[in-house]
Amino acid sequence: MVDEKHLREMQTVWWQEGAQGVAVCMIDQSLLPEQVVYLTLTHEQQVAEAITTLKVRGAPAIGITAAFGMALALYRLLREQGKALTLSGAQEHLQVVGEMFRHTRPTAVNLQWAIERMLRCARGATSEQRSLLRLAEALRDEAQAIADEDFEACINMGRYGAELIADGDTLLTHCNAGSLATSGWGTALAPMYVAHRAGKKLHVFVDETRPVLQGARLTTWELKREGIPLTLITDNMAGHFMRQGGIKAVFVGADRIAANGDVANKIGTYSIAVLAQAHAIPFYVVAPRSTIDLKLSSGERIPIEERNPDEITNIRGVMIAPAGIRVANPAFDVTPHSYLTAIITEAGIARPPYNESLRDLCQGYHDAERQADD
Amino acid sequence: MVDEKHLREMQTVWWQEGAQGVAVCMIDQSLLPEQVVYLTLTHEQQVAEAITTLKVRGAPAIGITAAFGMALALYRLLREQGKALTLSGAQEHLQVVGEMFRHTRPTAVNLQWAIERMLRCARGATSEQRSLLRLAEALRDEAQAIADEDFEACINMGRYGAELIADGDTLLTHCNAGSLATSGWGTALAPMYVAHRAGKKLHVFVDETRPVLQGARLTTWELKREGIPLTLITDNMAGHFMRQGGIKAVFVGADRIAANGDVANKIGTYSIAVLAQAHAIPFYVVAPRSTIDLKLSSGERIPIEERNPDEITNIRGVMIAPAGIRVANPAFDVTPHSYLTAIITEAGIARPPYNESLRDLCQGYHDAERQADD
Repeated sequence: MVDEKHLREMQTVWWQEGAQGVAVCMIDQSLLPEQVVYLTLTHEQQVAEAITTLKVRGAPAIGITAAFGMALALYRLLREQGKALTLSGAQEHLQVVGEMFRHTRPTAVNLQWAIERMLRCARGATSEQRSLLRLAEALRDEAQAIADEDFEACINMGRYGAELIADGDTLLTHCNAGSLATSGWGTALAPMYVAHRAGKKLHVFVDETRPVLQGARLTTWELKREGIPLTLITDNMAGHFMRQGGIKAVFVGADRIAANGDVANKIGTYSIAVLAQAHAIPFYVVAPRSTIDLKLSSGERIPIEERNPDEITNIRGVMIAPAGIRVANPAFDVTPHSYLTAIITEAGIARPPYNESLRDLCQGYHDAERQADD
Repeated sequence: MVDEKHLREMQTVWWQEGAQGVAVCMIDQSLLPEQVVYLTLTHEQQVAEAITTLKVRGAPAIGITAAFGMALALYRLLREQGKALTLSGAQEHLQVVGEMFRHTRPTAVNLQWAIERMLRCARGATSEQRSLLRLAEALRDEAQAIADEDFEACINMGRYGAELIADGDTLLTHCNAGSLATSGWGTALAPMYVAHRAGKKLHVFVDETRPVLQGARLTTWELKREGIPLTLITDNMAGHFMRQGGIKAVFVGADRIAANGDVANKIGTYSIAVLAQAHAIPFYVVAPRSTIDLKLSSGERIPIEERNPDEITNIRGVMIAPAGIRVANPAFDVTPHSYLTAIITEAGIARPPYNESLRDLCQGYHDAERQADD
């Protein structure tokens, strides 16, 4: 049912190796849907800049990108310094590069999680691993493993989530939590892809998602490519269409989930959650376990990225507001767990009380990290 | 306290008479804030087109514009046909022009109300009123009276509404219900103007109001000119900032209010009303009595204008979504009366039950129309 070959063709970020050396490649999402441009980045700073400027976005995708970027950093250093490079010099540089990536986007925890995992891999290098090229290959393999695991996780989130979708359902989604946000089918969109390919008829209302318009630009593009019927709406129409009675469920992604189930996701998610509850519409968050931050007891402590006011006063180069006015631009908001119907992960569906269900689903998963840290 | 001279300087629509003949003048709101362009329209079809294309918008302002447009129509016909024009010919033409204006925007009832009033004025012409020029002057005076009454109504709405604003309050508004939407201080913004000039410190969160961005382009421009501190936000941030705790009240305008208090207003108003109720924030609708349609028992029967999908897929000429996708673009939504804290009119503040309070406030007002119809 799941055509994995087709999925691989929709790659968002990938590693390239050839006679020219190594590179991190990606589709430039800031130019979609007008232009489909692929970037070939050969320096880790270009990769970090691609994350900051939203050329690549989506919590899982930026984790994968940073991981590849760290592998790229060591290849680049090896090429430039050759035999002069020592193991401790390489490890120190990776630490610096990890810090650089850590500061590109503060809210998504997948980024922190992926960087930690890459640093563990680098720290694990022994003196036996004398060839630094072998360490670079190990980092590349670790980054690829993160991407591959995410690919599998998307399929499993899709399978769990699709069970909550009935034939003929009209759904609502916000932002882009699809293949462009991951290395596979996405998080919130994965259940739609699985349900669609299983023959269920769907219709998806897509919030345009101001200011960066990920819904209008990216989710519509993905769903159209897949042949899933959709209606693009402005964010402020969600309540109106919920009241009209057609919307059966809301599916959104997440950038960080606290231990109690509070969810940080794209700005506007909280408003939709309140509206969904007021209309008794199920509200599902779909995210891999790498998004779950059991160290945070609640969403109040999740850092919220404040982005450039220009994203609001300029739309793709066109001024839409008077110069010099004050603008707020929080990129994310926090939805308290009481608004959630369930959290769909690759390991199963968590329901309230989330403190218990999330801990159970993460059993072994986060433990493995902790052991590695010891 | 209210500097009327200053107010007159902020005119949105006005009548011009001179050696060149008569004209309906307006500021082209579709070009604000980048360009401040004034239009001088000499044909009623230009006036209708200005309403359809949102060069002038806001329920009271489009009523005033259509009224001036109907006076303009008779002046134009007189100029072109001279003595060949008969009273019945003039009245028939005004009927046709009234129909044309009626179809420019279906949701705002002020437009229907102003057209009816102008047609009554035209029907009132007797054979004694032999000079058709005198009828044209009577129509011009009637249109000016509509504008002047709206000007006074704005001041009174401002005074009633300002009593609900405390020194230091942070408020939220949606769309533009300010001086650009009326012939005076506006509806929802009038209480802010009055409070501000009375020395109360305010801060206003302004929803950008997709798709046409009346908040980002017009409300910010007005408030900045007045010196009222503001923060521009995207529509999907309203819930987030309500949850942060700073917002003390929401003020919005209305395009039509049913007898039971249900309110049609700019798309997104309903979502904000639900969010306000969820956060126990007062939600005030500010509108003149000409907006109240006692003939409609509830909001379910208010016609909702569906506008061009291009307003959503193009922002000021820039494509932001893939070509050929399905888009919904209802220009308004209906907020059930149960979400309203009060309706502020020029004759006082209506509170639940609205069936009674609105009827009381309109006593005599709509009666005068009915008598004239008899």
